[in-house]
Amino acid sequence: MTATGEEMHALVERLYPLCRSITGDGVRATLAIIGEHLPLQVHEVPTGTQVLDWTVPQEWNIRDAYVADTAGNRVVDFAASNLHVLGYSVPVSATMSLSELRPHLHTLADHPAWVPYRTSYYTPEWGFCLAQKTLDALPDGEYEVRVDSTLADGHLTYAEHVVPGQVADEVIVSCHVCHPSLANDNLAGIAVATFLAGSLAEQTPYYTYRFLFAPGTIGAITWLARNAEAVRRVKHGLVLACAGDRGQLTYKQSRQGDAEIDRVMRHVLLASERPHRMTEFTPYGYDERQFCSPGFNLGVGSLSRTPYAGYPEYHTSADNPDFVCPAAMADTLAVCQEVFAVLDRNRRYVNLRPHGEPQLGRRGLYDSLGGRSDAKQAEMAMLWVLSLSDGDHSLLDIAERSGLSFDTIAAAAGALHGSGLVQA
Amino acid sequence: MTATGEEMHALVERLYPLCRSITGDGVRATLAIIGEHLPLQVHEVPTGTQVLDWTVPQEWNIRDAYVADTAGNRVVDFAASNLHVLGYSVPVSATMSLSELRPHLHTLADHPAWVPYRTSYYTPEWGFCLAQKTLDALPDGEYEVRVDSTLADGHLTYAEHVVPGQVADEVIVSCHVCHPSLANDNLAGIAVATFLAGSLAEQTPYYTYRFLFAPGTIGAITWLARNAEAVRRVKHGLVLACAGDRGQLTYKQSRQGDAEIDRVMRHVLLASERPHRMTEFTPYGYDERQFCSPGFNLGVGSLSRTPYAGYPEYHTSADNPDFVCPAAMADTLAVCQEVFAVLDRNRRYVNLRPHGEPQLGRRGLYDSLGGRSDAKQAEMAMLWVLSLSDGDHSLLDIAERSGLSFDTIAAAAGALHGSGLVQA
Amino acid sequence: MTATGEEMHALVERLYPLCRSITGDGVRATLAIIGEHLPLQVHEVPTGTQVLDWTVPQEWNIRDAYVADTAGNRVVDFAASNLHVLGYSVPVSATMSLSELRPHLHTLADHPAWVPYRTSYYTPEWGFCLAQKTLDALPDGEYEVRVDSTLADGHLTYAEHVVPGQVADEVIVSCHVCHPSLANDNLAGIAVATFLAGSLAEQTPYYTYRFLFAPGTIGAITWLARNAEAVRRVKHGLVLACAGDRGQLTYKQSRQGDAEIDRVMRHVLLASERPHRMTEFTPYGYDERQFCSPGFNLGVGSLSRTPYAGYPEYHTSADNPDFVCPAAMADTLAVCQEVFAVLDRNRRYVNLRPHGEPQLGRRGLYDSLGGRSDAKQAEMAMLWVLSLSDGDHSLLDIAERSGLSFDTIAAAAGALHGSGLVQA
Repeated sequence: MTATGEEMHALVERLYPLCRSITGDGVRATLAIIGEHLPLQVHEVPTGTQVLDWTVPQEWNIRDAYVADTAGNRVVDFAASNLHVLGYSVPVSATMSLSELRPHLHTLADHPAWVPYRTSYYTPEWGFCLAQKTLDALPDGEYEVRVDSTLADGHLTYAEHVVPGQVADEVIVSCHVCHPSLANDNLAGIAVATFLAGSLAEQTPYYTYRFLFAPGTIGAITWLARNAEAVRRVKHGLVLACAGDRGQLTYKQSRQGDAEIDRVMRHVLLASERPHRMTEFTPYGYDERQFCSPGFNLGVGSLSRTPYAGYPEYHTSADNPDFVCPAAMADTLAVCQEVFAVLDRNRRYVNLRPHGEPQLGRRGLYDSLGGRSDAKQAEMAMLWVLSLSDGDHSLLDIAERSGLSFDTIAAAAGALHGSGLVQA
Repeated sequence: MTATGEEMHALVERLYPLCRSITGDGVRATLAIIGEHLPLQVHEVPTGTQVLDWTVPQEWNIRDAYVADTAGNRVVDFAASNLHVLGYSVPVSATMSLSELRPHLHTLADHPAWVPYRTSYYTPEWGFCLAQKTLDALPDGEYEVRVDSTLADGHLTYAEHVVPGQVADEVIVSCHVCHPSLANDNLAGIAVATFLAGSLAEQTPYYTYRFLFAPGTIGAITWLARNAEAVRRVKHGLVLACAGDRGQLTYKQSRQGDAEIDRVMRHVLLASERPHRMTEFTPYGYDERQFCSPGFNLGVGSLSRTPYAGYPEYHTSADNPDFVCPAAMADTLAVCQEVFAVLDRNRRYVNLRPHGEPQLGRRGLYDSLGGRSDAKQAEMAMLWVLSLSDGDHSLLDIAERSGLSFDTIAAAAGALHGSGLVQA
Repeated sequence: MTATGEEMHALVERLYPLCRSITGDGVRATLAIIGEHLPLQVHEVPTGTQVLDWTVPQEWNIRDAYVADTAGNRVVDFAASNLHVLGYSVPVSATMSLSELRPHLHTLADHPAWVPYRTSYYTPEWGFCLAQKTLDALPDGEYEVRVDSTLADGHLTYAEHVVPGQVADEVIVSCHVCHPSLANDNLAGIAVATFLAGSLAEQTPYYTYRFLFAPGTIGAITWLARNAEAVRRVKHGLVLACAGDRGQLTYKQSRQGDAEIDRVMRHVLLASERPHRMTEFTPYGYDERQFCSPGFNLGVGSLSRTPYAGYPEYHTSADNPDFVCPAAMADTLAVCQEVFAVLDRNRRYVNLRPHGEPQLGRRGLYDSLGGRSDAKQAEMAMLWVLSLSDGDHSLLDIAERSGLSFDTIAAAAGALHGSGLVQA
């Protein structure tokens, strides 16, 4: 696990310098690197495509950008950090006074050494982000201002990876890939999703698992618009974001609030005795906003460590690879694996001998289950499964009602299924 | 508001001396004075009319009543206070010893200076109410006893005032007008209802508001019996009683317990941070008993300050105009106005773009809403309204779920409605 | 009541020496003694009969059994206590060394002076149960081992006693009769059931009460298999077990959890202010396992004092007649009587004058009910019954909602029924 944590951190570091946005070559380069770990199906959706209530915007690419003083020194330089440029800046090439420039400069007064992250996707605008202390040190005078970007018809790019399951019903795992040099938000989520997909592919899970790497909001909306069939198959889902900081885990419930993924997550987090927070759904945050919009209302929750906007480094240059740690990412990954291990086995069985107890003894269901106190617990688990397998109770319900572990209950259901006493 | 409190108190003082009962000229005189504030439709229902399980009784009127000693001194005198006569006393004119008289005398041993209020509507009886200390001071001997009353076929009188709304669905506000010289029970309720009606008439509310000024029990039953059509239109209602004493507010829930009026009242009382009590429905109290009887089961609660029978002055001469105060009546009125302001706007909207979030930006729904943190809150409110406007959630539900104020949510719904994103 | 406690204890003492099992003459002798108190219908079901998922086993009878040393001294002797023989031991007659014998010897290391109770109904086996200290004192050497038992086709025996009611709907009271010399488990339960049946027979209850005296598990399963018609009539039920120890009462709820018997039991135990425990259903314990299996899912709970396996004396020679006490059995019996007194009167009425309050005064429903504060309470009770008798609320619901006693509510319902204001 530690090794996996280090591998995920290495992926974060490798992806960190790329200049991602909601469209453009930075997204393509990111998907190419993820593609080295997982086979990806990459989709290119043309500018102007209608997607639900939205329209795919023009594609944005940038080569260079800077503010230079009259001596030609770059006082703000895209080459040093892609955060320096307002996302989706239109091209500009001009010379202007500092006072003319000021309305286009964004800083963080509270954190004078940090560079903020800002965008203007749908309102044509240009601008620079810089440290307050850099701004404070700029003398009045003329500056050369240049943004060498293009905003032109092109494509919105996203990718999918599907782990085929025994049934067509799907679990969707989604993470946004539109943020530039920000590590926790969301390279850590991308890394956890990538390694989670890899570990699922080693099994044949019950559900089909679909991993979605797409730009936030417009990417999720594009996927939802183009995949009406798949959307109908989605039974559960998880949005991964802010998955690598040192804070405790936070699970934000789906809009339904008691969706199966919500109940499984609660069970796993409680059973594992990890410190954690469960929060109710709010219509703000990441792409759970789209999956849980009332027309879809999917059972999709969101797993983070410190949640959305909950830490000072959020959307600043301080959210760098040092801010995320291998152990935290490994822990997030482990929870995902535990959750999907429960979700994937959580079915409703029906007791086929529901009148009185079936005679377990003559079916060898006492002795076949090993040591003394284990055998007693296995017997209790079988009685619980028989008692509650009326079509209304899932194995998770039975585990919670009985106080026995999900694994014990699932094993009992398996033994009873093997003896023909229950059917799924 | 203070001015309104004083005006309501002046109305209480003016109505106080009148000898009201469940029928008779005292009720007519009371309605005439209310009619100076509000146009009233006065109804006269003949004695003997069948109303549900009851029959309208004979009309009672009284001109004089006293107990006089042999010297002709009136030791108990109706002219001093109408409480001195047992309500609905049959006529009597006799001379008798104190011991013969005693079974007809009612006092309060616990409060020897107070005169109790007693009635005998449906069992023919005569009697006097007096202070215990007055009784104790009476020497043995002969007394002249006279009740100059008439109990004869006539009418039961009640009145209505209707504030027309945008829809025919009704809110009923009811107060009993049958008590003689008792200020809190129920002249304060009458005064609050009168001024509430006046303030509603200045707007065009959504609901039609019907104010009912009627004698307790038999009056409500008579109205229910004669207005089957209107009863079907009543969606919400409030009984006003004991509305002016200095105690904290008490809201008694409807029999339904979770009727919309119950939820709105709870929300307003909590949001306003007024000290208050919420109590469950009991089949005792005021005319909510009739409106909430199982055959009607209307969403009608009851608002009081100190509730029914909850104060020592209840149904005694100590419930006089000094017992009620202008500020308390003004506060009761204000709560009613706040409650109806919420109730009147509390509708269920349906998101017309429920698949994903609609693009608010291109509709100008970010900037159009004023200052910085206001704008952020307005945006959150719009996202909440969009998320929960699935036909199952009212604006009150959304306010409670989001933690935002009802006004903020209602404003967001209005903005979204203006952009065609939701419909009622 | 004390007298009844002593009578029940005498019955326990009389039944104690008999060697009961799931079949055999010990059960027949037990039923014969119960039959001296109650007319019983005794059923004999042949070996090999299919009953639900089970088969009636061969009948077991035993005449003698011992382990003797070479001097002929019986070191373990069935004649001293029937617990010494493993229940359903197959016959054996052999001489063997102590080490060969050891695997057939059962002791309790934690309680070296007590003899455990063990059985092997469905796996052919023989064995002896003895005190650990007896075993420890046995010298090595040869022992004569003899079990003079027969295991042969015969019958399973159980008995019923029915108290006819006004309706065919049934309440079943069940107790297991298969345990040999164990007093609390379940001679105390048998004694309470016997005297409960006797006291019910003195009335004509509303429900028909069926008492079942049958061996545990296989007996209940046999009854369920052979009485499909009666099972459909069972509306409520109670399993009596461990009914006589000095611990507080424990009620284990039915699988439904909110069955009427569960609610009545909770009400009676709370109202009586007895210390007690309410526990949720588990699929382990006594014959509630069978009655509550999902195919039947009857409203059957289980009343014990210290519950199943909850005391060290459980299933040992220490569960002797001294372990149970007359007062505890009398208390268990009293609770059963109180519970059935409520259950038997707990019906849903419908208010026939649901629009407004009916005029109680002209029907004489105020005065006809005795003293002052009683009359007030009776009036409140009538108002509650009228208010909630909409077909959804039982008298128990109304008692709990109003805070009045069940008896007061039931009396009010009776008075209203007498006046034609409600119907059942």
